[in-house]
Amino acid sequence: MKELEREIQEHGVGIGKDVVKVDSFLNHRIDVGLATEMGKAIHEAFADAQVDCILTVEASGIATSITAAQAFGNIPVIFAKKGETTNVSSDVYTAQVYSFTHQVMNTIRVSRDYLQEGMKILIVDDFLANGEAVEGLISIARQARAELVGVAVCVEKGFQEGGKRLRAEGIRIVSLAIVDAIEDGKIVLRSEEA
Amino acid sequence: MKELEREIQEHGVGIGKDVVKVDSFLNHRIDVGLATEMGKAIHEAFADAQVDCILTVEASGIATSITAAQAFGNIPVIFAKKGETTNVSSDVYTAQVYSFTHQVMNTIRVSRDYLQEGMKILIVDDFLANGEAVEGLISIARQARAELVGVAVCVEKGFQEGGKRLRAEGIRIVSLAIVDAIEDGKIVLRSEEA
Repeated sequence: MKELEREIQEHGVGIGKDVVKVDSFLNHRIDVGLATEMGKAIHEAFADAQVDCILTVEASGIATSITAAQAFGNIPVIFAKKGETTNVSSDVYTAQVYSFTHQVMNTIRVSRDYLQEGMKILIVDDFLANGEAVEGLISIARQARAELVGVAVCVEKGFQEGGKRLRAEGIRIVSLAIVDAIEDGKIVLRSEEA
Repeated sequence: MKELEREIQEHGVGIGKDVVKVDSFLNHRIDVGLATEMGKAIHEAFADAQVDCILTVEASGIATSITAAQAFGNIPVIFAKKGETTNVSSDVYTAQVYSFTHQVMNTIRVSRDYLQEGMKILIVDDFLANGEAVEGLISIARQARAELVGVAVCVEKGFQEGGKRLRAEGIRIVSLAIVDAIEDGKIVLRSEEA
């Protein structure tokens, strides 16, 4: 998606060999106009799929999930919660997700009340890198016997294994931008023609 | 706001004397149509104020912040992060926030890059109860010498002290719904005429 790719080129920061810092517009400060356009692009990619509900995980996945849900005509968004909380009932689906960013294992959880068998679910997140968060969400969708329509992410790190592994499993993945490498601080994007 | 009040009456659950469970439409599963309307209502309440940016805290404040930012014409949203992270630079404003829900003290942080002196900031969150989260965000806005336009929340617990204390400090608070009590599991809302 051109607007996102331009934003990554202009304001993204590559650190070391694998960190793509986009917190000026995606996951700390949010460019809401861009988020709205990304939501529309996700809807376009899955417009044929009759999505019932978007599933994401707190916190950075929420913004794009909301704008995508608007583009689908205000379908609900469910965000999985991380860690323990006293306010989510014990009647939950859970999955273990390792966060490379925070270097901790998180339990993510979704109340059983909100996922039904056969519900068509689109998973949305800001990043796809090693795929841990997305796999946790897929596990939760499967526990609920929901139907996984696919996965939409804003930025895929093409040099990490998550996207490759999920596609090999036959899961439909749409990435609005793919980073192929970080070279001397420069973020190298996969061209759309590739 | 009538739509939110109706939703609270129909789908909110009062637990004990002080828990208002609204996770079927506000802070776990999100009713995106309602979120969009709440964003418009927040814009209407602060339309005179030339807001530059919305400040919230992950995770439950993000959805309404996004829809409010859209109603303001796509102004940016900054969400404070909780806890330690390796990806937010050390150059941050921080505040200590006690979470009654999780019974832990969290450090919330915002990168100094995104808040400038004189910037007109509207704080948005899903709940105002004891006011800890909002006070943490106000502290961060003041550290940045930003101008606090006011605070907009979806649900205020009128029987807790946060709203009262902040109003006594002269801060403009807009609550889209105010819960005055929980009586035998029934959520008692303050009438709009009151």
